[in-house]
Amino acid sequence: MPELRYDPIRSRWVVIATERARRPHEYVQKHEEPKGDPSTCPFCYGNESKTPPEVFVIAPEGRKPNTSGWEVRVVPNKYPALRIEGELKREGLGLFDIVSGIGAHEVIIESPHHHLSLGDLPVEHIKKVLIAYRERIKDLRKDVRFRYILVFKNHRAEAGASLPHSHSQLIATPIIPPVVVQELNVAREHYSRKERCIFCDLIKQELLLKDRIVYEDEDYVEWAPFASAFPFETWILPKKHLHDFALLNDNDLLKLAYVLKDMLQRIKTVLDDPPYNMILHTAPSPHPRPGREYYWSTIHLDYHWHIELVPRLTRIAGFEWGSGLYINPTPPEEAAKFLREAEIGPID
Amino acid sequence: MPELRYDPIRSRWVVIATERARRPHEYVQKHEEPKGDPSTCPFCYGNESKTPPEVFVIAPEGRKPNTSGWEVRVVPNKYPALRIEGELKREGLGLFDIVSGIGAHEVIIESPHHHLSLGDLPVEHIKKVLIAYRERIKDLRKDVRFRYILVFKNHRAEAGASLPHSHSQLIATPIIPPVVVQELNVAREHYSRKERCIFCDLIKQELLLKDRIVYEDEDYVEWAPFASAFPFETWILPKKHLHDFALLNDNDLLKLAYVLKDMLQRIKTVLDDPPYNMILHTAPSPHPRPGREYYWSTIHLDYHWHIELVPRLTRIAGFEWGSGLYINPTPPEEAAKFLREAEIGPID
Repeated sequence: MPELRYDPIRSRWVVIATERARRPHEYVQKHEEPKGDPSTCPFCYGNESKTPPEVFVIAPEGRKPNTSGWEVRVVPNKYPALRIEGELKREGLGLFDIVSGIGAHEVIIESPHHHLSLGDLPVEHIKKVLIAYRERIKDLRKDVRFRYILVFKNHRAEAGASLPHSHSQLIATPIIPPVVVQELNVAREHYSRKERCIFCDLIKQELLLKDRIVYEDEDYVEWAPFASAFPFETWILPKKHLHDFALLNDNDLLKLAYVLKDMLQRIKTVLDDPPYNMILHTAPSPHPRPGREYYWSTIHLDYHWHIELVPRLTRIAGFEWGSGLYINPTPPEEAAKFLREAEIGPID
Repeated sequence: MPELRYDPIRSRWVVIATERARRPHEYVQKHEEPKGDPSTCPFCYGNESKTPPEVFVIAPEGRKPNTSGWEVRVVPNKYPALRIEGELKREGLGLFDIVSGIGAHEVIIESPHHHLSLGDLPVEHIKKVLIAYRERIKDLRKDVRFRYILVFKNHRAEAGASLPHSHSQLIATPIIPPVVVQELNVAREHYSRKERCIFCDLIKQELLLKDRIVYEDEDYVEWAPFASAFPFETWILPKKHLHDFALLNDNDLLKLAYVLKDMLQRIKTVLDDPPYNMILHTAPSPHPRPGREYYWSTIHLDYHWHIELVPRLTRIAGFEWGSGLYINPTPPEEAAKFLREAEIGPID
């Protein structure tokens, strides 16, 4: 019998098909994607002039800006969804509300290697990608027009990547995005009733139940969420309560890089390098807002940052769009088992 | 400058790209889809035994069940997402909630014609498809285990259709789906404050502003929503307040068939027969629930039924999934203009 499960974080039901569960090999599609040509790829060494000038870089000392030799490079998106210049206006029009499309849209080029994906990089290098995430978040938060900075990654064309050279992106928005608002509200409501973090409560429960845990170490836990909307959805959460990813130090990020590589390698092994989306959910920019300069109301100390990964194996069709109810043909318990038992190489 | 717009019905922001707006021809992809073979198609005449036995049919008198000669035929889905048999159980597991996956999943075969899509059928025939929707909703509502019946349609493989022969579907669920809950809450809150329907208010405002109206007649209005999440998203709403689609009589449905054909023909003409999803949003099944047998709380008289159509032209990637913020590269005002000015044949 299938099951409907309620996601206490996202406040939404999903349908989990518990019988005739689809196994990993049933999702594998051989995807012949253009590999691109390093000589013309704007993210490869020697083509730095093909992107807008870099806004952040990890590179050896003495390197000239916008030349080769870098390890991680962040540039503005050439085709941004939101525009950095202009005044932020908020207006009403009858029942409608409009905010000017001010924002930042940046590309984090994860490495100079055209053919290596994020999960294939050494842990030490992945740490540098995470440092780039953190530094860009911290820098963009200085702009008081921005309410949120969302870091995300589309792996492979089927997941929305427009270039094959491995990269992450971030978009800074003048509003807090709806999905984040939802999670913030749930965390705040839980805290205001119980003076506990809902994510910490979930971690405690999941570690007790064990059947959706993929991997854990001293600092992080990796699991398939109880109400996964998509097959093989996997999250990474820090065991220690912390609302804001940007507060992590380099050593925290090294440990995170290890777990992140672990997750990416398991997903790659079990599903034969599937397209995926990865999202970093952290507390919003801690700006006071006009008229509500209360510290507590803009710093969401009751939130708990985490990383969500969604392999793109199923389709969002009319039912999902019209109902908000996703049908997941692989129970997270089985997904977690496959991921847990995956034979992956050494993580280093 | 792009714009963020707030959708007062769905309580969510979208990004509307107002400059360099994508025009219809930029979305057109030539899709060579398998056309299927009528001799083996389970939805064609003579193959009635290939589907589960029909649960509703519109056919001339004297026809034997599950034989040819029908005009519209409704059968259970051979691979249902939810199961019709079994006892409905609702349980908790710590922070989690589980409901057994009881439901109905049916296919409305819109016509015997293998190669005709819904918008190509005569208005009189489309009316019969709408009658099938209504009758199935009314019949399934008798089952007190079901809280909602969602009628939807996936047109073309890219929008999730698994068979090329034109069909709609419905899924009855033991919970009210999250997107519907959201709309019901908005409608109820608006009504409780103002004793007016938010949809009626929107209709009044949009008819005044005019720039997103695609078509209107005495009874219905067709528009591109102000905060369309997808390019060329189009809705049909009845001008007269009514919460429940199932209350329409045959004459109302004939008028609706006319507007529906109008919308489908415009979409087909402007976007060269794109893949689309269509959804019918109506008030939930008016069952009393255990412990809250209040009439007013389960009959959502303040809701306003409508039809939503979403052409599938853009991709949902990491940003959209992680933020709930959709980027729409065509402002609804421009979409409405293209649709309004489309040269379509006579609607009959």
